This record gives sequence, structure tokens and C-alpha cells, in this order.
Amino acid sequence: MSSESETPNALASDVVQSDSDRHNAKMARKKQARDKIMAGKTDEKGLVIVHTGKGKGKSSAAFGMIFRCIAHQLPCAVVQFIKGGMDTGERNLITTHFADLCSFHTMGEGFTWETQDRDRDIAAAAAAWEKAKELILDERNHMVLLDEINIALRYGYIDLQEVITFLRDEKPEMTHVVLTGRNAAEELIEMADLATEMSLLKHPFRSGIKAQIGVEF
Amino acid sequence: MSSESETPNALASDVVQSDSDRHNAKMARKKQARDKIMAGKTDEKGLVIVHTGKGKGKSSAAFGMIFRCIAHQLPCAVVQFIKGGMDTGERNLITTHFADLCSFHTMGEGFTWETQDRDRDIAAAAAAWEKAKELILDERNHMVLLDEINIALRYGYIDLQEVITFLRDEKPEMTHVVLTGRNAAEELIEMADLATEMSLLKHPFRSGIKAQIGVEF
Repeated sequence: MSSESETPNALASDVVQSDSDRHNAKMARKKQARDKIMAGKTDEKGLVIVHTGKGKGKSSAAFGMIFRCIAHQLPCAVVQFIKGGMDTGERNLITTHFADLCSFHTMGEGFTWETQDRDRDIAAAAAAWEKAKELILDERNHMVLLDEINIALRYGYIDLQEVITFLRDEKPEMTHVVLTGRNAAEELIEMADLATEMSLLKHPFRSGIKAQIGVEF
Repeated sequence: MSSESETPNALASDVVQSDSDRHNAKMARKKQARDKIMAGKTDEKGLVIVHTGKGKGKSSAAFGMIFRCIAHQLPCAVVQFIKGGMDTGERNLITTHFADLCSFHTMGEGFTWETQDRDRDIAAAAAAWEKAKELILDERNHMVLLDEINIALRYGYIDLQEVITFLRDEKPEMTHVVLTGRNAAEELIEMADLATEMSLLKHPFRSGIKAQIGVEF
């Protein structure tokens, strides 16, 4: 190539190769830019991570991170603030196969519209938050997932300021805490290191398809 | 309660109870509405599911669904179109513990800006798509995840029309197919049953935090 391109005869080959060459040169620039960005990322610290929005995947993506920890043999923990009938799959998988690495606590008594008992819901949420603090303060845990805590916060079952103050002042520096659920409080997103919104573009419930094994639970 | 509320003396107790009662009545209505909606969802069918957007969680949420299938002992499969250095966690977990339920195929040769070889990328993407079709047509698979296929489609490494036609006309009726990656084609979202966009609200890379074990990979 390099010797060819010094002669006029190289032109025909240049035309043939140009698409690939242009692409490769572009990719090389991208790689250079990316390597530079990554080299600048030197700090490690425990992150406060929020998954919110009306779309799907908030809990699944959080469980995906828990599974990554498990894969890397890093101890972790899950507290489910609201027990739906839906996501028993992950729970069973973790408690059956990986109980030694990931402790799993389902503290809620079911979705609030299933229980219809505000006082019991408040007591369950308070107990879940106590357990959450205990697990976060245990520095053996690399990551703690507070699944659907945003719903408990939204209903006022747990005090938002207490949660924010705890995460800011008492969370061990290297521990990741993941908080999921729709309607995350603006202040929580503000203090988070990483926040993702899952939005619904299309949903099959709208066209009459029911919740299905493997997809919804 | 019901006898009390028939007398004027019930008023004081009504005031004390009113917050909880109002909440419980509201929740009862929510449950009724929800039960009604769920009862109308009678059709089961295999879904085309798209996770896109610039936020995190697209692949993690898809792997979460794969883990749900595994938890329910349903055979499934993963084809990774673009092999990042990042998400080796889920792959290791699946291939180590659940290879009997979930077959795992990493066909990409690394992100395009790592390989810098368009021709090799196209060949790898074509091979991945052939494997994907084979896995989808195998009706034993309850779900097939085509991880990062949107990137291969975006670069034109695979033909969008071929993918859409295949999913519409040849996918077995009960098989779920999940397609992930940013920049999903508008036509793909159009034909999907369920599409979710993950948007970035905040990202720690912006404040100098590097990719971390358990969070990013």
C-alpha cells in the first residue's frame, strides 16, 4: 500500500480500497479518542446508581449488575422493598445457586395495591430500610441493590432525607448502592453518580399481550 | 367500623382513621383496575423486544431476562455481535453454571474501533447473524438475545431489511427475540412488540470515574 500510494498507478486501487480505508482511519481515530478518555478515568469509588422511568429493565439491569458481581466472586446483597409476584426468577436463581455470595431479603409484603394496608406497608418498608443500612455498612458487600425503594420513597413510607443523608455521609466509600423504581426523587437523582431513565417506547400490554414467563417474571 | 360509621360518634374515629382509610380505598380501586387490565391480557406470543438508547442497562436488562429464563429452566441462547472487553461477567457466569440451558456465542471480534478492520467486522457480523437465525429457528429456545446487534445494523454490517423480514416471517410464534444496542433503527422499533429506551441522566465517566468491576463489566 505505502509504496503503491507514491505512484499515480495507485489511484485505481485507492478507489477500490477507499471505503474500507476511510472506515479504518475513522475507527483508528475513535480508538485513540476512546483510549485517551479511558486513561483519564483513574478514580475508583463506590457509586450511587439510580434506575428510574416508566419503561422496563430497571430491576433487570440492576440484577444484571448483581450477577456481574457474583460472576467476579464479589459479595453483594439485595433488599426488595416491594415484593411483586413478578420477579421471582432472579430471586430463585440467586437463592438457589449463589446464596453464599449474595444475600437476598424480600421485606415488602407485596405491591401496595395488593395489600391495601398502609400501616403494614410502612412497617415493612421501615424494616427493609433498617436491613438495607446494615448491609451497606457491612464493608464486605461490594454492591447493595435496593430494589423498588423509589416506590416506598414515593409513598412516603421511608424518609427521603434520611436515605440521602445516609448515602452521602455513612455509605462506605467503595460500596456501590443501586436504587430502582419509577418516579425517583429529583434530589436522589441529583446526588447519584449514575442515573438512567428507562422509557417506554412500545409495550405489548397495550395490544392485549399478557405478562409472560421469562419476559416479565 | 361499618357499624360505627352509621352513628355520629364515629366521626372522631373517622378523622383519625381517614388517612389510612383513604389510602386503602385508593389502593383497592387500583387493585381492581389492575386486575381488570391483567384479566384482559390473554394472548401469549413470542415478542420482539428492543433495548436502545444512550443510557446504561440495555444489555444488563436483556441478560436479566435470560437469567429469568434460566431460573425457570427454559432453554435460551445469546449471540454477542460485538465483543467488548467489558461484559465478560455475565458470559462467564452463564458458560460456567448454565451452559446446559443457555448456549452462548460471541461472534464479534471486538468493538469496531478496537479491530479497525471493516472487512473482518462484516464477516464476523454475517457469521453472527447466521448463528442467530439458526438459534431462533430452533424452537427449543424460549428466548434468543442478539446482544449489540443494533451496532452491526447501524454500521451496515448486516442488512436491516433481512433482519426485519426474518423476525416477521420466519421467527417461530412463541420465541422471544431481544435485540440490544444504541441507535436502534426506527423500522425495527416499529415492528417490535416491546421497545425500551435507556437514557443517560447522569454518568460518572463525566466526572472522571473509570469503568469499575461489577458496574461496567
